[in-house]
Amino acid sequence: MNRAINFSAGPAMLPEPVLSQMQNELLDFQGSGMSIMEVSHRGQLFGSVQEEIERDLSSLLDLPPDYRIILMHGGAQAQFSMIPMNFCNHNNAAPAYIQTGHWGRLAVKAARQYVNPCLIDQSGSVTMPESGWNIPDDASYVYTVDNETVNGIEFNHPPSVGDIPLISDMSSNFLSRPVDLTDYGMVFACAQKNLGIAGVTVAIVSEELLAREVLPFTPPLYAYREVLAKSSTPNTPATFSWYVMGLVLKWVKAQGGLSAMNELAVERSQLLYDFIDSSSFYHAPVEEVSRSRMNVPFLLADEALQDAFLKQAEAVGLTHLKGHKAVGGCRASLYNSMTVPGVQSLIAFMKAFEKQA
Amino acid sequence: MNRAINFSAGPAMLPEPVLSQMQNELLDFQGSGMSIMEVSHRGQLFGSVQEEIERDLSSLLDLPPDYRIILMHGGAQAQFSMIPMNFCNHNNAAPAYIQTGHWGRLAVKAARQYVNPCLIDQSGSVTMPESGWNIPDDASYVYTVDNETVNGIEFNHPPSVGDIPLISDMSSNFLSRPVDLTDYGMVFACAQKNLGIAGVTVAIVSEELLAREVLPFTPPLYAYREVLAKSSTPNTPATFSWYVMGLVLKWVKAQGGLSAMNELAVERSQLLYDFIDSSSFYHAPVEEVSRSRMNVPFLLADEALQDAFLKQAEAVGLTHLKGHKAVGGCRASLYNSMTVPGVQSLIAFMKAFEKQA
Repeated sequence: MNRAINFSAGPAMLPEPVLSQMQNELLDFQGSGMSIMEVSHRGQLFGSVQEEIERDLSSLLDLPPDYRIILMHGGAQAQFSMIPMNFCNHNNAAPAYIQTGHWGRLAVKAARQYVNPCLIDQSGSVTMPESGWNIPDDASYVYTVDNETVNGIEFNHPPSVGDIPLISDMSSNFLSRPVDLTDYGMVFACAQKNLGIAGVTVAIVSEELLAREVLPFTPPLYAYREVLAKSSTPNTPATFSWYVMGLVLKWVKAQGGLSAMNELAVERSQLLYDFIDSSSFYHAPVEEVSRSRMNVPFLLADEALQDAFLKQAEAVGLTHLKGHKAVGGCRASLYNSMTVPGVQSLIAFMKAFEKQA
Repeated sequence: MNRAINFSAGPAMLPEPVLSQMQNELLDFQGSGMSIMEVSHRGQLFGSVQEEIERDLSSLLDLPPDYRIILMHGGAQAQFSMIPMNFCNHNNAAPAYIQTGHWGRLAVKAARQYVNPCLIDQSGSVTMPESGWNIPDDASYVYTVDNETVNGIEFNHPPSVGDIPLISDMSSNFLSRPVDLTDYGMVFACAQKNLGIAGVTVAIVSEELLAREVLPFTPPLYAYREVLAKSSTPNTPATFSWYVMGLVLKWVKAQGGLSAMNELAVERSQLLYDFIDSSSFYHAPVEEVSRSRMNVPFLLADEALQDAFLKQAEAVGLTHLKGHKAVGGCRASLYNSMTVPGVQSLIAFMKAFEKQA
């Protein structure tokens, strides 16, 4: 078996040791004679999986005492609706949305069903104006996307928004560097990029935000406080997705935690950006200060060669390099599971393709 | 490795050939060098998984042309909120809920957030009065639970409700017998009982119901028509849960389809009910006409022996026999994956326990 080098933006590649452990215990989890996917979510076996997830997340994130971990269904897009449903019913003040790319735009669209948000349009850049953001002092919250997967744009630090709770979509860079959670009211991430496989979304929410009254028509599975009151299992969760997240968290810890993940992320992405910047055949469209460590979009100077590039890459086992349909081009997603040799293989292929083209 | 005989009510046991196939292709799906859980939900590999799910479900269910298959997040409990949000905004008429047990009660509770349902309380029985149901002729829909997992109560045929669309929660008996879908406006089932693992819910919905206007605050992932318009993938689904469902559907087909599943279900459950009825040591609390083929609740005449019974069963690899906390007692769930020898092992253990007690 030749494993591919998988640059998928999500669902993304997993660390091979995690896959091997899954494979080994697939029919018999911890000597139970059952797969972890065949056991009750109310029983001891799965209970331990959940406890360890919460313990490992708390330790990796250095969880402050007044923040809670909530695990949910529905992917990040469920959060796009949940956030206004749970938090905009406050002081009669609209939230503000900082919009740097694709997913921020979708979050604004979802919010508009419930509230009229104040829009800070920074498309294509995380370079914030020093002042004049027009965020009202009493905004119910400020929403931002820490890493824009489609556009390859990432904040290096949380935007400074004063005392207003900052809510950040970290779906594509969660656990890729240390974060000071006290800078945020809430962060959230779907699992299928840096955390495991699709089927579970993690939110870390401050008790201050959790105290707010939800809009009255919010369904119970969309109400953070209700889900938390039932220990994130108001009903059956995607138990196998939770289990995989548990394995990935242990793998991240074994690699050295979030500082180690950040060092690797910087090394991987810098290798690729440096190569692209040194080339006139390839081009990285994002301004340097806004570039993502996780998702590296790039273009071929001669667009007509792109299809051949993608096809030949696929043929040598470099997969999922096509850019998101919303922006086109190419994109290499370099999440925690991507190795430096994986990136080197991509660069070697890019050089070889340029030479033959 | 000794595989347990697993009587879990859900997440439930899977057919061993399905688990073995998952294990074999876990690191390399169809020669791609990737796990199916590592690939994009928008790509060809996962696209084929989805197509085959829809094709196999259509053929197993003999899908009428004016019904649509929708796959969703959130488990059956998301449906409890979605159904009134999508279908009660019709003729200004309240829906009617036939309530035979635990899950029906939870569905009523969820519906009350949006509408004041007319309640037909049949707790503990599916024996319907011939008339006088008090279902208003213009009820927006009638809701029922085809099999009450907690109580072990199952309809043998759809309750006759005239022209009003009948919506049935088939979470715990879906694909266990042939069903004439034209008797229903909608049926739905979470996957982790007869269909695979947790993380995906299937609904089969008539175009008549899909034409209704949703309540205005319904989030996009809770609006059937919107999810369907995006081919059940408005965002990343729990891709591995879908894949497992695909494998289970192929397994059901290979066993002979829904008629074969029903024959097995009758054989398995009859074996166990016959033994319990022949014993004065054990007791099946549900009246004969209402008994479920899927979930067999039973009590020990001497309740004080129950803990020892469950502990000894577990010790010999007969797992998950404890009844739901809402009703207590014992329960053996006999879904499609349970074998006749599995039930015979349970009966042998029950006899031996009685003898030594």
